[in-house]
Amino acid sequence: MKVAIQGDIGAFSQQAALQLVDRPDIVPCRTFEDAFAALRDGSADLAVIPVENTLAGTVTRPMDLIASHGVHAVAETLVRVRLCVATRPGSTLSEARTIASHPVALLQCRAFLARHPWLTAVETYDTAGSIRDMMHGAGWDAAIGSELACGLHGAAVVSKDIEDDPRNYTRFLALQTRPEPGPDVGKLSLAFTLHNRPAALHGALGTFADRKLDLTRLDCRPLVGRPWEYRFYADLASVDADLAREVVDELERFAVDVQVIGRYQAAVGDGS
Amino acid sequence: MKVAIQGDIGAFSQQAALQLVDRPDIVPCRTFEDAFAALRDGSADLAVIPVENTLAGTVTRPMDLIASHGVHAVAETLVRVRLCVATRPGSTLSEARTIASHPVALLQCRAFLARHPWLTAVETYDTAGSIRDMMHGAGWDAAIGSELACGLHGAAVVSKDIEDDPRNYTRFLALQTRPEPGPDVGKLSLAFTLHNRPAALHGALGTFADRKLDLTRLDCRPLVGRPWEYRFYADLASVDADLAREVVDELERFAVDVQVIGRYQAAVGDGS
Repeated sequence: MKVAIQGDIGAFSQQAALQLVDRPDIVPCRTFEDAFAALRDGSADLAVIPVENTLAGTVTRPMDLIASHGVHAVAETLVRVRLCVATRPGSTLSEARTIASHPVALLQCRAFLARHPWLTAVETYDTAGSIRDMMHGAGWDAAIGSELACGLHGAAVVSKDIEDDPRNYTRFLALQTRPEPGPDVGKLSLAFTLHNRPAALHGALGTFADRKLDLTRLDCRPLVGRPWEYRFYADLASVDADLAREVVDELERFAVDVQVIGRYQAAVGDGS
Repeated sequence: MKVAIQGDIGAFSQQAALQLVDRPDIVPCRTFEDAFAALRDGSADLAVIPVENTLAGTVTRPMDLIASHGVHAVAETLVRVRLCVATRPGSTLSEARTIASHPVALLQCRAFLARHPWLTAVETYDTAGSIRDMMHGAGWDAAIGSELACGLHGAAVVSKDIEDDPRNYTRFLALQTRPEPGPDVGKLSLAFTLHNRPAALHGALGTFADRKLDLTRLDCRPLVGRPWEYRFYADLASVDADLAREVVDELERFAVDVQVIGRYQAAVGDGS
């Protein structure tokens, strides 16, 4: 199965893909847009995409793309993110001036960066790609990524486990273009926008509360071109197909639009 | 009045400070942490801090710091963000390889960056600082910031209004260490964490809905060290002091903790 990931071989998205698919044929993509395009044009069967990290919060771009592309979530998985600092062999961190990684990884290492104020952070498209490019002459002196990526690209590991807190997990969704019926009981992910009237969100959440559903996550993103209006994202635990239909039908009474992102088996544990 | 901003002279935070305070004595700070420290040690009377952008969404770090520092919001203002590309005079964008700016500004220019795939984005602490540092020999070839900052630092403006959508506004809060009584009627900003039980968020929002309050924003951030738990941030329009007390008292029935960020005059218009 061809699985698009954002990032390069050795990225945490590759680990997520390995947890979800038996022997995936990884299609590395430079941007999230490229990964969604690979789904659409059929060069990938599945995209495995990060949506949330326990230290950095929502991975915002995928949320926007999931809504605008109308793709379907068919599975989720959690990855424990352990970050290393890599340099070219023989180099030290004290002589480094720049350090590159994916912006979400940089957000997970605020304390490390504060302790090394001489390092300027360079935002790259990927953790693993920042290590590979450093080894191939890119203009930065250090990079942050997985130990696996350091090994793959022959970089020296000069510091390990530099994330701000060890409970550092990223949640990934497996996305495809066609919907699936989903498991008997599973997590339901919805996106919706509401009429701009008082208590609209309370009414929408009442749809879930009336049925004693466990709202495991509620998030929002701005609607571009409509200042101070938002698209909401809700995840509900343990929903069967009938209940999902009922919830969506009732939610539509409060909403301008409702999108079913998917109903899928919830990941177990906390990603460790 | 000494006003701490994150960023340098010419940053959009300076414009926000000018909108809020008559002839502010600006205290430029490298990081949000530094701006909050300036408040705490008395080297600033006020900090003017961005919390939300209509294209990029929540400015996440300040939200975390507002909750952890227990500071008080006393005013808000909206700034229309217009972004320029600056180079050193005589240089062109086609010969540039790297372009620097604040990560939130980079998020507002995704379409521009996609049209210029040869440019690697470099994350800096500030829009204006990225222009100044470029002019003083920093290792990047172009920078994104305000036209004001280009003029202040003698940089050439090679492209204007590069943001993805013209309805690009940033909302700023004025923060101080001591609370103020607030206006007769104003916006109320709260932070709260909830007991992990079904319908907890619906119950909390019921506190607002029962009083026909207009929830202008609901946002959340992860609790570091407690995977998949969140702190919520709510803004409510047109609340007087008595109603604020009543809402907080009732919200405490649902919440592990409730923090009043502040009650202040709502900004008018959309920031244009």
